[in-house]
Amino acid sequence: MKKLEDYVITIPDFPEPGIMFRDVTSILQDPDGFKLAIDELTDMVKDLDFDVVVGAESRGFIFGAPVAYNLGKAFILARKKGKLPRETVSAEYELEYGTAVVEMHKDSIKPGQKVVIIDDLIATGGTIEAIIKLVEQLGGEVVKLCFVMELAGLNGRERLKDYTVDSAIIYEGK
Amino acid sequence: MKKLEDYVITIPDFPEPGIMFRDVTSILQDPDGFKLAIDELTDMVKDLDFDVVVGAESRGFIFGAPVAYNLGKAFILARKKGKLPRETVSAEYELEYGTAVVEMHKDSIKPGQKVVIIDDLIATGGTIEAIIKLVEQLGGEVVKLCFVMELAGLNGRERLKDYTVDSAIIYEGK
Repeated sequence: MKKLEDYVITIPDFPEPGIMFRDVTSILQDPDGFKLAIDELTDMVKDLDFDVVVGAESRGFIFGAPVAYNLGKAFILARKKGKLPRETVSAEYELEYGTAVVEMHKDSIKPGQKVVIIDDLIATGGTIEAIIKLVEQLGGEVVKLCFVMELAGLNGRERLKDYTVDSAIIYEGK
Repeated sequence: MKKLEDYVITIPDFPEPGIMFRDVTSILQDPDGFKLAIDELTDMVKDLDFDVVVGAESRGFIFGAPVAYNLGKAFILARKKGKLPRETVSAEYELEYGTAVVEMHKDSIKPGQKVVIIDDLIATGGTIEAIIKLVEQLGGEVVKLCFVMELAGLNGRERLKDYTVDSAIIYEGK
């Protein structure tokens, strides 16, 4: 019986020497791998009391949407700057070089709603920290952060230590 | 009983005067709307013989992934230039101003595989036409193109007349 990590193709020295790039698209490319990933994410939250799933653009959409559908929840988008057509709230976060902005629709979370955030990967946790700020600014309560893969060497879990973090696969490196 | 189109918020004169912008995110924001959209897309293909779902970045991911999961299929990404980590094939398509490039992993479709392409919206059909080229270049056979919304005034269906097009909601205008 294959485990989820058996579906991940690792590309050594990409995008630069010393980095082991974990390619999540190789999971999706196999129907059994994709089913396993969605089932594991669904299991992480199915017994929780919550209202909406927030997915981070764009690979978070791939994993967040099926989980929201499976559990009968709304699916809310956290997108890059300028992609959402109605009134938004926005937060800046740091990249390796420079900064980026993430946005959510102002009416996408109602005060008091319980929120699960799903993304493909937790690295430094910077993007997710910015999304948490937006959810809380809208009056939502973040009840769990779920990831397919975690690069533990980048300490995202430490940065998000006030929240419950769950990852299907944990890699020790960066 | 609400129909799928009842969940769509229309923004008049956005992004420019005379355009009625149909906001698909308002469907997702309601759990019943999201469920209805995925169920309608699933129904469009559930009796077809096919192997993989291709989703177009990034809103196609939201609708394509749950359908692939529901029917036990692989989910393949068609992404903007430079986003996929392994060897790709690419095709250019026209935008209102300039051009853009869409890419797929070379090993994502195997020769002879039957393919369903899912996106949120069909407008002129230019992006989908480019994705079809890539699927066929890899030896795949496109068996259906499925959309949540269609802007019939932009004639995408005419452009893609060699293929089967199905849309959950058809708007007469642009």
